[in-house]
Amino acid sequence: RFGYFGKNNPKVIKLLVCNLDGCLTDGRVYVNQDRELISYNLRDFDGIKMLLERNVEVRLISERNLSSSLLSSLNLPCKIEVNVSNKQQAVERWMAKMGSSWDQISYMGCQYSDVECLKLAGTSGVPADACVAAKMTDSFVCKYGGGYGAILEFAEHIISLLENLGSH
Amino acid sequence: RFGYFGKNNPKVIKLLVCNLDGCLTDGRVYVNQDRELISYNLRDFDGIKMLLERNVEVRLISERNLSSSLLSSLNLPCKIEVNVSNKQQAVERWMAKMGSSWDQISYMGCQYSDVECLKLAGTSGVPADACVAAKMTDSFVCKYGGGYGAILEFAEHIISLLENLGSH
Amino acid sequence: RFGYFGKNNPKVIKLLVCNLDGCLTDGRVYVNQDRELISYNLRDFDGIKMLLERNVEVRLISERNLSSSLLSSLNLPCKIEVNVSNKQQAVERWMAKMGSSWDQISYMGCQYSDVECLKLAGTSGVPADACVAAKMTDSFVCKYGGGYGAILEFAEHIISLLENLGSH
Amino acid sequence: RFGYFGKNNPKVIKLLVCNLDGCLTDGRVYVNQDRELISYNLRDFDGIKMLLERNVEVRLISERNLSSSLLSSLNLPCKIEVNVSNKQQAVERWMAKMGSSWDQISYMGCQYSDVECLKLAGTSGVPADACVAAKMTDSFVCKYGGGYGAILEFAEHIISLLENLGSH
Repeated sequence: RFGYFGKNNPKVIKLLVCNLDGCLTDGRVYVNQDRELISYNLRDFDGIKMLLERNVEVRLISERNLSSSLLSSLNLPCKIEVNVSNKQQAVERWMAKMGSSWDQISYMGCQYSDVECLKLAGTSGVPADACVAAKMTDSFVCKYGGGYGAILEFAEHIISLLENLGSH
Repeated sequence: RFGYFGKNNPKVIKLLVCNLDGCLTDGRVYVNQDRELISYNLRDFDGIKMLLERNVEVRLISERNLSSSLLSSLNLPCKIEVNVSNKQQAVERWMAKMGSSWDQISYMGCQYSDVECLKLAGTSGVPADACVAAKMTDSFVCKYGGGYGAILEFAEHIISLLENLGSH
Repeated sequence: RFGYFGKNNPKVIKLLVCNLDGCLTDGRVYVNQDRELISYNLRDFDGIKMLLERNVEVRLISERNLSSSLLSSLNLPCKIEVNVSNKQQAVERWMAKMGSSWDQISYMGCQYSDVECLKLAGTSGVPADACVAAKMTDSFVCKYGGGYGAILEFAEHIISLLENLGSH
Repeated sequence: RFGYFGKNNPKVIKLLVCNLDGCLTDGRVYVNQDRELISYNLRDFDGIKMLLERNVEVRLISERNLSSSLLSSLNLPCKIEVNVSNKQQAVERWMAKMGSSWDQISYMGCQYSDVECLKLAGTSGVPADACVAAKMTDSFVCKYGGGYGAILEFAEHIISLLENLGSH
């Protein structure tokens, strides 16, 4: 039902999957003797809310083993899956449940482990400070780095793509 | 009694209202298992004191539900109103109590939820890293981002406007 | 015994006084419910050690009421005086005890409250992100901002001045 | 068995030694009343893993007296030696145990105390914000500063050198 129309030319976007590490956060982990601290930006919170209002689901994904207490402290309005060893498999599992295909997926990533998903997704974006291999995936390159508003910037990009769709 | 003389051309400035999130702070929220951490800049503290010395009241406003213990830790010499769902209504409530009108208000904001107030205020400013819609409000655009001295910079701008008033 | 030979042309430098707020730190104060957090840069720690090895004493000064437990956590090899309402008087008190005069003093500052000392000191420096009034004091302007190596940079400047002295 | 072929022209690289302070971290130490906090970047974690997969051992070194609980919180897949007063001696002790020579060593540093090792190592790198003396050692200068991905960048440089070796 939905063909593939090339990057940045989606027919519909059902889901944004975003790497928590280095996209939501700036990749920094603060540690002291007994715990760790990460940070996110309220601007990206605004970006997530804007997508949800337009019926684009948002999910965060991480290779790391973040504790559930840390995740609930983040207090974000989207599902977060952690401890993901194979991101492509995780996204395809979600796609199967939603009955959607890669061309309906937006993916934002910055690490080597994001490269496959960045290539497969119908729409993809990387923060300004993504690794070289992630930047070489024909993705939308944000002006802002991870943790400094990259998700908001990519969300605005997605919304403008959706508005162009609506105008046809 | 006070007509509207256009942006950056105030007759008097009675109040600066400033978004706490992304203007006082850089928008980053640091979280660990059981609490969150935000940061502000002592330079902006200097800016707030300079305005108070010139009888411009300063108030901070936030959509977020910040705890009163966090607010008292900030230790700032101005009122802070949190959990504000409609910023325009909150400012207009203050204006009614003070007997003042929008042209006597300075407003500093950075989020989508600040756009209306930025348009209405007699004088308005945005940090360098404000969202696109906030920047498109004919406001003074700071060189510094939120949390890096934007409030001090806007306070210096306000004071130079007031000094020009005094010289007429 | 020691005349005044103009800025950046000292005969001897006995003491560097440096504003803790915004020079040692980047001016950011991180707060949560019950405590505050500040940060300094190990590069500046190197700068302080280099001056001490050359017999230039180093003292940090702050207007703020920092707790003694916080100060001892900083673990710096120099005296720190906090809660200083008049910086000029504090420095002059130290000068009297040391039998030195302003031309033998280096001063690094960034706030409005540093302007007088910056003007009086024989050698003076400001971080890249100092306030406008501090920058307009004919001081050495660092490329680095406060908390990002400004003290190391100013220390290297002082040491090159001292080496030029030695070569005459 | 292994001659010295000059900087950036290694025959083999057995070990990367990296200064923890200012290379793994950005040099910032965050303190409050009773503890300190440092941060590292997950991008650098990726860089360390990439080297380990290519059989280049990685060790971190620090002059500072970091607690073992802080070190285990870092949760890094490499040995960390702290409280090192003479870095050259420490590296040469490791080299003796491994039966290797300086030309097989990669070294990344940023402080004055790293200068000797940067000169001796067969391959060397410095973060963008290293001190002047460290930059003047004919080392690979990263675009990223310490704590912002400098180790990943230097790891990618090492890997491309190793791949060039393999293609001869």
